[in-house]
Amino acid sequence: MNIAALAGGVGGAKFAHGLAQIIYPRIHTNNHELIREDSWRLADHSLTVVVNVGDDFDHLGLRICPDLDTVIYTLAGIANPETGWGTAGETWHAMDMLGRYGGETWFRLGDRDLGMHLFRTAALRQGRRLTDIVADACGRLGVAARVLPATDSPVPTIVETDQGALAFQEYFVHRRCEPAVRDVRFDRIESAQPTGEVIAALDAADLVVVCPSNPFVSIDPILALGDLRERLKRKPVVAVSPIIGGQAVKGPAAKMLRELGYEPSPLSVARHYADFLDMFVIDRVDAGQTLEIERAGIRVLVTDALMKSVEDRARLAHDVIQFAHQA
Amino acid sequence: MNIAALAGGVGGAKFAHGLAQIIYPRIHTNNHELIREDSWRLADHSLTVVVNVGDDFDHLGLRICPDLDTVIYTLAGIANPETGWGTAGETWHAMDMLGRYGGETWFRLGDRDLGMHLFRTAALRQGRRLTDIVADACGRLGVAARVLPATDSPVPTIVETDQGALAFQEYFVHRRCEPAVRDVRFDRIESAQPTGEVIAALDAADLVVVCPSNPFVSIDPILALGDLRERLKRKPVVAVSPIIGGQAVKGPAAKMLRELGYEPSPLSVARHYADFLDMFVIDRVDAGQTLEIERAGIRVLVTDALMKSVEDRARLAHDVIQFAHQA
Repeated sequence: MNIAALAGGVGGAKFAHGLAQIIYPRIHTNNHELIREDSWRLADHSLTVVVNVGDDFDHLGLRICPDLDTVIYTLAGIANPETGWGTAGETWHAMDMLGRYGGETWFRLGDRDLGMHLFRTAALRQGRRLTDIVADACGRLGVAARVLPATDSPVPTIVETDQGALAFQEYFVHRRCEPAVRDVRFDRIESAQPTGEVIAALDAADLVVVCPSNPFVSIDPILALGDLRERLKRKPVVAVSPIIGGQAVKGPAAKMLRELGYEPSPLSVARHYADFLDMFVIDRVDAGQTLEIERAGIRVLVTDALMKSVEDRARLAHDVIQFAHQA
Repeated sequence: MNIAALAGGVGGAKFAHGLAQIIYPRIHTNNHELIREDSWRLADHSLTVVVNVGDDFDHLGLRICPDLDTVIYTLAGIANPETGWGTAGETWHAMDMLGRYGGETWFRLGDRDLGMHLFRTAALRQGRRLTDIVADACGRLGVAARVLPATDSPVPTIVETDQGALAFQEYFVHRRCEPAVRDVRFDRIESAQPTGEVIAALDAADLVVVCPSNPFVSIDPILALGDLRERLKRKPVVAVSPIIGGQAVKGPAAKMLRELGYEPSPLSVARHYADFLDMFVIDRVDAGQTLEIERAGIRVLVTDALMKSVEDRARLAHDVIQFAHQA
């Protein structure tokens, strides 16, 4: 069974790590008993994670791909467990000196993290494709899942706010998501195409999983590429709600939903994906929305959707895959 | 008295630091007794250090200026005392990760050092002049001397060798100066100009000091800019020999002299500068060359020219300034 997951952000990376734990149990030896019992069933599964690149940007001469790096570091088991982004045991000597010179330090680049940005920037300047660069880095870090940038073309996410149009990281990190969002668009999206690898992975997928990521700035920039949204209509698709009890676990998803005129609820997310979504996974606190989501023709799994520990990720991934198998 | 020093490399940075210690004794409190006794005489001196930029290069997306940084770190008192380049207490997390991804690690970029490269690269991309960027960094690090890049234009040093034409850092760091040098040239030097600040500093100088730097790859790229070499003929100029006992203290100066057909001796260096040089400072081990150097119309000071300690730098600088005063 080939699984293709769409991901962006910390929630997406955590859930992708849950999938990787159950699909590659020999590599992810931290999975709990439940997963080990099931592993024979998953032995011939494969996982491809298609990652948002709309938040990529050029900064201080370097090409920074925050969502890709969060997914890679998380799958490699070297992510910072507190922040969810960056690497564990990170040091900040470069930033400290940059700050001393009066440089811009609002986007925190750790010393270990800089190794990735230097590697990627140098390789891009040599004319290599982002897809191949990511494959190299993943290979070196022992990542078993295939990680694919959604596209090799820059498609920068622009957030239209009450304070004007803002580049995504300007909105997300520098302004801390404080401006009110009016619209989200993806620059140059019409001329960009998903890579051949992404199309092939989706075509080969027996199941597409939309991770608990921000619909507007993590998943939509993937779906807006070429005919990917149309392609998803021809596949069984299961999504995990990034909204639990009216809140986003992390990031501005709930605030964005409100500002764009929706209730911050799983139902709103399900409706956002309704044209291609077959199955939806929500938390127990949102069980009351089950009937209304099912009314849209979407099957619902109610489970514990909050991932506090590494084991939670695997358990939730297991529940989702089992649900999709049975569906 | 205004002193303008021309410098590049570790020897040049060390000697510039010696000058700074005696000219700004309140900042450099580590100067020994001799200097403190003389400090009243130096109270109204100023020091401008004009630094080679021929070794600057683009690497991993960043603009790297090794000679400038060595001078800045040394004057700021944060240089690595073992290597002479980079910062003290440096860490290598970014390089370690870059190496793990299979990236190029032959040019060692420490984590603290990366702060400078990120600051400079970002500022250059904003259209700022290298001269202003260096002034900012020096101000932030409390450097009292004025540090000036010789030019704001890229004038990359190319080393013609028996293994072909090599960019300077490729020859110097990557190939460890192993190829035999046939010639040295400076790309785009005809269209480059020294900055207005450099011309003004040299015009205002009561004494020009050529630091104990490599004549071919540290000093010549400065002198080749516009009419700087001609301007030096109108000034009292004292140079300190980078060659002691037939050896360069650091770097390939002696090897280069041999490969270019000269004896690796102070005399060869004096002859290289003969058209503008008034005074030359050599080590006691080379005292036997005094008469022959003087025969070229150059006054000679014989002293201890080896700088092993921070105090040695100040003592040598003191000897050189005193010698020039008396001349």
